[in-house]
Amino acid sequence: MEKVNLAEKFSRFRDCWQPKIVGELNDSYVKLARLSGEFIWHKHEAEDELFLVMKGTLRMKVLEDGREREIRIDPGEFLIVPRGVEHLPMASEEVQVMLLEPKSTVNTGDLRNERTVEKLEWI
Amino acid sequence: MEKVNLAEKFSRFRDCWQPKIVGELNDSYVKLARLSGEFIWHKHEAEDELFLVMKGTLRMKVLEDGREREIRIDPGEFLIVPRGVEHLPMASEEVQVMLLEPKSTVNTGDLRNERTVEKLEWI
Repeated sequence: MEKVNLAEKFSRFRDCWQPKIVGELNDSYVKLARLSGEFIWHKHEAEDELFLVMKGTLRMKVLEDGREREIRIDPGEFLIVPRGVEHLPMASEEVQVMLLEPKSTVNTGDLRNERTVEKLEWI
Repeated sequence: MEKVNLAEKFSRFRDCWQPKIVGELNDSYVKLARLSGEFIWHKHEAEDELFLVMKGTLRMKVLEDGREREIRIDPGEFLIVPRGVEHLPMASEEVQVMLLEPKSTVNTGDLRNERTVEKLEWI
């Protein structure tokens, strides 16, 4: 049982859109990710997902009742995207986020493409 | 679906050792708590618990193989206390923490006493 220092863990990687595992509890992983630019629209059928912003500003586009909305998430703020909700994470400048989601969660949700991270790395 | 600003939520309460719910995902709650002084030794039989320190220094005493150890957790650091591990949170000066744990988790674990919070409040 060791504590985790988020800044130290972030210093271990530079690649974007490649979440790294830094902890596990119950059926979930705690992950860290750097995000930059635009991801892809996707949803997770059965998994809620928490995004806690540590650095930068995350802009999350979400689809609610067929209408697009953008939620701006600054450091010290989190957003929980409920299962089934289409979302598109975007970052004009690089963002550092802590994610919390079930171990089963795939970064591209119900899609599989070149942005899918098939094998998660522990750091 | 609305983002949560942690500082704003912390400004809504002053009482210590009384976790408040600020979010839910999957089978877990995200809670905020102010801690000051010493809590009680306890464990959670079937629940892992995450403590992310936002402000102040949390000192977590844990019992490992019958030996006491103290882990110091500063802002930007988290500790996951696995199920079954006896632990005692302490704070010389007030600490602000974000907790993540299953909805079933009781603050005093397998004990019920005057420090038990029976009904959690959403803020």
